[in-house]
Amino acid sequence: MPKPSMRSYVAAQQDFRAGKDSPSAFLERCLATLTETEPQVLAFVHYDAAAAREAAARSTARWKEGKPLSPIDGMPVGVKDIIETRDFPTENGSAFFKGWRTNRDAASVTALREAGAVILGKTVTTEFATAPPGPTRNPWDTRRTPGGSSSGSAAATGSGMIAAGLGTQVLGSILRPASFCGCVGFKPSLGAINRSGSHDGLSQSVHGALAASIEDAWVILREIADRAGGDPDYPGLFGPAAPPPAQKPLRLAVLEGPGWSKAAPEALATFDAALSKLGAAGVTLVRRKESAALEATEVALNRAMPVSQLINAFESRWAIKSYRASDASKLTQFARDRLVDAERITLDQYRARRAERTAIRTIYASLAGEVDGVITISATGPAPIGLESTGDSIFVVAGSCLGVPAISLPLLTVEDLPLGLQLLGFLDRDAELIGTARWVRDTLTAKG
Amino acid sequence: MPKPSMRSYVAAQQDFRAGKDSPSAFLERCLATLTETEPQVLAFVHYDAAAAREAAARSTARWKEGKPLSPIDGMPVGVKDIIETRDFPTENGSAFFKGWRTNRDAASVTALREAGAVILGKTVTTEFATAPPGPTRNPWDTRRTPGGSSSGSAAATGSGMIAAGLGTQVLGSILRPASFCGCVGFKPSLGAINRSGSHDGLSQSVHGALAASIEDAWVILREIADRAGGDPDYPGLFGPAAPPPAQKPLRLAVLEGPGWSKAAPEALATFDAALSKLGAAGVTLVRRKESAALEATEVALNRAMPVSQLINAFESRWAIKSYRASDASKLTQFARDRLVDAERITLDQYRARRAERTAIRTIYASLAGEVDGVITISATGPAPIGLESTGDSIFVVAGSCLGVPAISLPLLTVEDLPLGLQLLGFLDRDAELIGTARWVRDTLTAKG
Repeated sequence: MPKPSMRSYVAAQQDFRAGKDSPSAFLERCLATLTETEPQVLAFVHYDAAAAREAAARSTARWKEGKPLSPIDGMPVGVKDIIETRDFPTENGSAFFKGWRTNRDAASVTALREAGAVILGKTVTTEFATAPPGPTRNPWDTRRTPGGSSSGSAAATGSGMIAAGLGTQVLGSILRPASFCGCVGFKPSLGAINRSGSHDGLSQSVHGALAASIEDAWVILREIADRAGGDPDYPGLFGPAAPPPAQKPLRLAVLEGPGWSKAAPEALATFDAALSKLGAAGVTLVRRKESAALEATEVALNRAMPVSQLINAFESRWAIKSYRASDASKLTQFARDRLVDAERITLDQYRARRAERTAIRTIYASLAGEVDGVITISATGPAPIGLESTGDSIFVVAGSCLGVPAISLPLLTVEDLPLGLQLLGFLDRDAELIGTARWVRDTLTAKG
Repeated sequence: MPKPSMRSYVAAQQDFRAGKDSPSAFLERCLATLTETEPQVLAFVHYDAAAAREAAARSTARWKEGKPLSPIDGMPVGVKDIIETRDFPTENGSAFFKGWRTNRDAASVTALREAGAVILGKTVTTEFATAPPGPTRNPWDTRRTPGGSSSGSAAATGSGMIAAGLGTQVLGSILRPASFCGCVGFKPSLGAINRSGSHDGLSQSVHGALAASIEDAWVILREIADRAGGDPDYPGLFGPAAPPPAQKPLRLAVLEGPGWSKAAPEALATFDAALSKLGAAGVTLVRRKESAALEATEVALNRAMPVSQLINAFESRWAIKSYRASDASKLTQFARDRLVDAERITLDQYRARRAERTAIRTIYASLAGEVDGVITISATGPAPIGLESTGDSIFVVAGSCLGVPAISLPLLTVEDLPLGLQLLGFLDRDAELIGTARWVRDTLTAKG
């Protein structure tokens, strides 16, 4: 199996316009990688190369005429298998939904098709986008987990089988697999992308992108939002159609979040080296001892995991109860055990955790007056060995609990394996976060 | 066909406890009415009397042991056919979903079963809970519409085939059919009842009850909320388990809403007579000329219909687009035409209408300092003759746009046909509205 190498669709567009490359040729490169890699990585539940080739040919014709439908016209994408598509079953990583079809596209998929994207297939998720892993392996080392729950979209993007995949995150399901598989993982602000027709209706859940670059992540989400909007009652993703330009942040808060004590020394060392480079480039790095708001945020975020877990368990229990009543044998033991715990939660307890979450968000928002963003790592270290767990989401739960935009950038390396550098922004200021992320990437990858 | 007569389950419970009546006997009375009435009213898409009898027998055993699961243990209910149930298809009033099964219960249905309720069947809805009517006729006069979109739940409740039915409202789909069919229609605060597993994911849509009495409406919704909570990210219905006691309001605002000029003179006359009776009982009735807040509210509510319609069209277009792409022949001409209009809406226009809706809500909220509630009628008059339209929702769109609790009470009569008296409350103060509604009913129905 080749060393993983990603394929940016945005980067190829200049050659499309110049007639030196085409969506069909781009897809063929993806399919060549898929042929070589997929048998070991197992990123897809279902895919259809023939249908993708037809869609890519139509896109190629549009580009040749100079009339692409959008910047993602022809982009090969994967769709996490909790999001409905009319051409494939939607199996939710569960035996209960084996072969289940709805004959319709989710809002995000409807938008992708309108924008000309090529839906290559459905990507592996953990059971109901929670814990029990699917078969997917990490393309950097197949003994290791790809992370979850957006396992397949991350592994397929990280290995260059697609330019981007749709993912969803309610705890850490976009940023953690992005960190482990070495791709970009962008979770936008709460409600920024319409989740209608997707089986992740929890209050913290957000649709986002696993992508070959920051630019690919931005354009795919921006094109979806432009056509399908955000969740009902949300204004949808704000920002320009083209990726917001690189923007140097004046001040970044260095977040020593709830997972800090679990982080591998090598992970902290490579993070420190990156911080030094940013500092040398003129960014003021704000630490806990220098900021009461940051200190309060770090203390508040110690509750992010238990608060998020209780809220998620309460909000998802009706579905698991209903599946259990229909056919308990099609649930994993994990799902059944988790349900027993969830059934003990009262409405009053749920209300209390919601109120607590609101308080945590309020504390974090006070940072906006002090810094342009927040920087930390995306995981305790590289992907752990073993496929029985998708790893620890303690470093990325903050973004989910807070509802703010968060991005994991494949800029750090530990033991020759990828580790994500994480940036967090402020609610509905996603475009600023992207500008910061581009500047940070350019600065850390600059030669010399 | 007999004159419609409702069956309150709450009112029967004293006899259950005394051993003089039972859930099985209650169900048999409902089924006798169904046998006589349903062939002309056509309230159900699917029902299963045998399964209902088995469930009622189990409930009867629990009541005999003195151990009912809840106040709605054994209550015969209907479920609007956009809400998933594992024992029936969910057809959304559409040929597209003919025979479509999910093998799971929606959150509200899961809760109903846990509380012991007897799900008699699925009730008719208009196409996708919007305009094109189903086959249901008004039980008071089968030449007339039952209203929509919760047509079947209203007709079945109004004629005594069930004690209550689940409905949903995004413009006027609970209160309008309640008004036309002569039953209680209660739409709680936005988000008060968990809609997961129901096909009404629009931002204004709310689950509520069509019921034989205020008390039945309260207990069914309260028992659902206790088990399934509200929508994700909402605190769920607030209030006591037992129906809040009758509470005399000191001041009620008389709302001359956007439909006022369309109201039939007879409707306004009977409303005036009711107001006089409330005034005589000591309620201060506040009119537009006496309150700047009420005047501002009436002006603002002139925008309720266009704002709501644009928001609903934008939020539902992805689904209709997806159905059209799969099989346009299974959509009505209305749905296809509406989609063409919806496709012209931009994300910026949607954002502007959302902001406008927020402003309308803010203006209305200022009334809370002046009055205990708002009173008006539920429709321009009784159900119109004809089955090609479900009537005008201009009198009930306010509650949907505002997100506040609203209830229609079958207390007015025009030409021997029912007309609803409507009360509106304030966000998450549903229990107060119920207390007010009970007092208003008791006062208007008192002898002498």
